[in-house]
Amino acid sequence: MQKLNEQEIQDQMKEIDGAWKVKGKFLHRELLFKGFVEAFSFMTAVALVAEKSAHHPNWKNTYNKLIIDLSTHDADGITTKDFHLAKAIDTLFKKHI
Amino acid sequence: MQKLNEQEIQDQMKEIDGAWKVKGKFLHRELLFKGFVEAFSFMTAVALVAEKSAHHPNWKNTYNKLIIDLSTHDADGITTKDFHLAKAIDTLFKKHI
Amino acid sequence: MQKLNEQEIQDQMKEIDGAWKVKGKFLHRELLFKGFVEAFSFMTAVALVAEKSAHHPNWKNTYNKLIIDLSTHDADGITTKDFHLAKAIDTLFKKHI
Amino acid sequence: MQKLNEQEIQDQMKEIDGAWKVKGKFLHRELLFKGFVEAFSFMTAVALVAEKSAHHPNWKNTYNKLIIDLSTHDADGITTKDFHLAKAIDTLFKKHI
Repeated sequence: MQKLNEQEIQDQMKEIDGAWKVKGKFLHRELLFKGFVEAFSFMTAVALVAEKSAHHPNWKNTYNKLIIDLSTHDADGITTKDFHLAKAIDTLFKKHI
Repeated sequence: MQKLNEQEIQDQMKEIDGAWKVKGKFLHRELLFKGFVEAFSFMTAVALVAEKSAHHPNWKNTYNKLIIDLSTHDADGITTKDFHLAKAIDTLFKKHI
Repeated sequence: MQKLNEQEIQDQMKEIDGAWKVKGKFLHRELLFKGFVEAFSFMTAVALVAEKSAHHPNWKNTYNKLIIDLSTHDADGITTKDFHLAKAIDTLFKKHI
Repeated sequence: MQKLNEQEIQDQMKEIDGAWKVKGKFLHRELLFKGFVEAFSFMTAVALVAEKSAHHPNWKNTYNKLIIDLSTHDADGITTKDFHLAKAIDTLFKKHI
């Protein structure tokens, strides 16, 4: 799995929600929920998808706020794995709000 | 906390989703999800609400199916605690499908 | 994936915790925890393993009690998939109590 | 709920695991797990305890690593609430490894 170059990343960005940003080596998105119950149950859904695909997020939660950073450690950058996980997160989030 | 009589239960039933049924000592509802990820993340939301209110469901899960039975052990029947939890479950479920 | 015959099941039973019983088409085990927090966080660990292997338990939880029944629907019986999940559950449970 | 002064914090630090450090306005601890399954199921246990006490952690997870920062927003510092949550986390962690 090789990291994507800038053009490939720009192409892939069109396929995911506009709230995602490229931030250095990471795909970055911030999500807001009604409260902790909604935030943490959403994290559980993402955790199940992540574990299944053996690709896990870097994420930070404070009450109703969730900050997700996706990157592929072995490739030292963003790969198609990160875009797959971003898409799955988008799909789960649409159902969760 | 005393168990509700039949009339009180019938009155309270109007306040919760029509999918709930009285089944002996239990408020009973069956829920279907798209898959296991959706079912289990929903269970996590309910678990957080249940633990907070110190009132827990009897529940059974098989893949995308969740069967919930609510009752108050100490009262040996259905109490207002069960209707509160049922309402919370209804609210979470509306957001989850 | 074919269901195991009685001899194969008996052989496999030696590889899992003695608390598992064969109950019709199911591998059956009952687990007790200190409280709901311990029970549900254990369920979360099992959920992650189950989703990863695309093989899910039938399970029933009431407060600190968890009843697990494993079976392979497509094979209409117990298969090696069920023994794999049983072993994973045993490993997680040893760490959880 | 008022924030604790330095002396009060030093006294309370003796009551929690030595791995906790004071870092500005936060009680800070880093935890390592065998893998993501263990890390996230531990987070679920903490989430249940946090929601019950209406006091939530700032936390960051990357695969098997969990960084927890506890603070009381309304008091703009560390309060007894944070030490209570730290103790609960210590208790859960001892059972989880």
